[in-house]
Amino acid sequence: MRIGIDAMGGDRAPKAEVQGALDACASLAEDDKIVLVGDKEVILQHLAGNDGWEEHIEIYHASQAIGMNESPVEALRSKPDSSIAVLVKLHKEGMVDACISAGNTGAFAAAGQMMLRRLEGVHRPGIAIVTPTPRGPVALCDVGANVSCRPFHLYQYGLMASIYLSAMCDMPDPRVGLLSIGTEEAKGNELVKQTRELFQDDSRISFVGNVEGRDLFSGRCDVMICEGFVGNVVLKLMEGLVEGLMKSMFKELAHALPDQASMMQKIGSSTFAKYDFNEYGGAPLLGVNGLCIICHGASSNRGIMNAVNVVRELSKRHMNERIVEVLSQGPEGN
Amino acid sequence: MRIGIDAMGGDRAPKAEVQGALDACASLAEDDKIVLVGDKEVILQHLAGNDGWEEHIEIYHASQAIGMNESPVEALRSKPDSSIAVLVKLHKEGMVDACISAGNTGAFAAAGQMMLRRLEGVHRPGIAIVTPTPRGPVALCDVGANVSCRPFHLYQYGLMASIYLSAMCDMPDPRVGLLSIGTEEAKGNELVKQTRELFQDDSRISFVGNVEGRDLFSGRCDVMICEGFVGNVVLKLMEGLVEGLMKSMFKELAHALPDQASMMQKIGSSTFAKYDFNEYGGAPLLGVNGLCIICHGASSNRGIMNAVNVVRELSKRHMNERIVEVLSQGPEGN
Repeated sequence: MRIGIDAMGGDRAPKAEVQGALDACASLAEDDKIVLVGDKEVILQHLAGNDGWEEHIEIYHASQAIGMNESPVEALRSKPDSSIAVLVKLHKEGMVDACISAGNTGAFAAAGQMMLRRLEGVHRPGIAIVTPTPRGPVALCDVGANVSCRPFHLYQYGLMASIYLSAMCDMPDPRVGLLSIGTEEAKGNELVKQTRELFQDDSRISFVGNVEGRDLFSGRCDVMICEGFVGNVVLKLMEGLVEGLMKSMFKELAHALPDQASMMQKIGSSTFAKYDFNEYGGAPLLGVNGLCIICHGASSNRGIMNAVNVVRELSKRHMNERIVEVLSQGPEGN
Repeated sequence: MRIGIDAMGGDRAPKAEVQGALDACASLAEDDKIVLVGDKEVILQHLAGNDGWEEHIEIYHASQAIGMNESPVEALRSKPDSSIAVLVKLHKEGMVDACISAGNTGAFAAAGQMMLRRLEGVHRPGIAIVTPTPRGPVALCDVGANVSCRPFHLYQYGLMASIYLSAMCDMPDPRVGLLSIGTEEAKGNELVKQTRELFQDDSRISFVGNVEGRDLFSGRCDVMICEGFVGNVVLKLMEGLVEGLMKSMFKELAHALPDQASMMQKIGSSTFAKYDFNEYGGAPLLGVNGLCIICHGASSNRGIMNAVNVVRELSKRHMNERIVEVLSQGPEGN
């Protein structure tokens, strides 16, 4: 398998990307290759001093890079030789079997949707993120690919995210919840009410009904479905809470118990590590004809390495073939 | 001023409600009265042993109570003598000047919207909640009254929530942010894009543009506007995070540092108190011709007492008159 990595995206690029690729080599199969896409000179500098990388790593030059804060569509238009555009093009042309980027999320997701075709039967691609919680991993989909969802899009997200979580976490029959503002049937907006009917009509889904925001941590469901606007708000709120609230709490604790400050620091770090987005190696763009893993902008080399492991796992478990199969057995939708 | 309290709603009713009313008496003006609405016998039992309550507290009998999990509209129809229905009717008839309930939120908000008229110029009432953050209080509106918002509704929420926060927190010119999925103008759904134009056209609003979920804790805005579906998801997610995640972190800390467990407990409690929903005494249903304060179901007597202080403050500062005045000077909308 050939795995492409955008070496120029991400807050810690290219260091985290190159180191992540190096770390991933140990677990690769003999004929697996990693293709680092980006400024060849810069990548070579970061590879220097590491022995034997040539066995598993190739470099594909791209002269431009898209910044984290650039407007996705404009950047893709004005930078045709950006690492993101080149990477996705390589995937489209079959030169790599999967692509990974911690760069500009909007640009990567847009490139994936524009350049790769949709899998047969898929109406709209969606981004699924697995978030670790005290009661186990929960997949949330969509977190930003599709801000104007129709009920059938959400229904397909339920099917696709279930297949993804099954493959990722060895979970045979994930429970699917529909994010709403109350668990009663009558609650929610029109989108939720119509989606609910589609879920209820499909006996292949373990549908637990409407769930609420709090249920992300209650263990009520393994997969939580919502439209991209809501999912993106939720995702960034969680990040803000961890950054803004929890870290300030730990600071206060360390301040109040100065003798235990270093111990506290250690516990804090290990606690944060449990809820670390690097753990699940990024979020797949589900529904495209390919494997696109969107990594968090702040991904470490561990995050990148995990993303490599994830695409290998998803490929080995035939996630996309399974999605096509499952969708072909369901209603066609509109 | 006569302040009505639903004595039968809330997880700790009627104990918290009756005690909260008693605690509030100390700060009431001479001719202020609290009217406890609910089962007279039960309320009298809880008042027993307290001297002089008759000076400020009256009881108005209601024979029924709506449970926390009942369907709001059905419950209001089938229980015309419920404490919530009777309380709002008293307000409508001018027998009380404000009403407070920690009971079934949906039923209370529905009763308020159905029985009290809208303030002149208001298109749709919205619920605003003030959440304490490390960088100061932030008002979020709407958190569940209106799940199908039009841009003009959100625009009016911006005006109304600003007036509310000004009155509550003595903040002369709150910065208003529009909750979206990216700060760039092009990001968001149609609702956000059209609302953004309305905000930009009104120089009376300190509009800071689009904000993201993380900005609830970043200090970028004082008022955050979104439709009721999104706001309700956000609200319940925050509750879930505190309950599910932070408490489990404190448990781990106490477990890891057993000698400091009681100290940790103390710090934990004081930290949680800082982010306590009881602090701001509930969420007003903005835009109705009256004062309806929706308290959290788990409100303590402190929460109820604070709600009493809030309605006195909002009345003293003529919040509703100010809303009518400000809306009358703006566009009429559709």
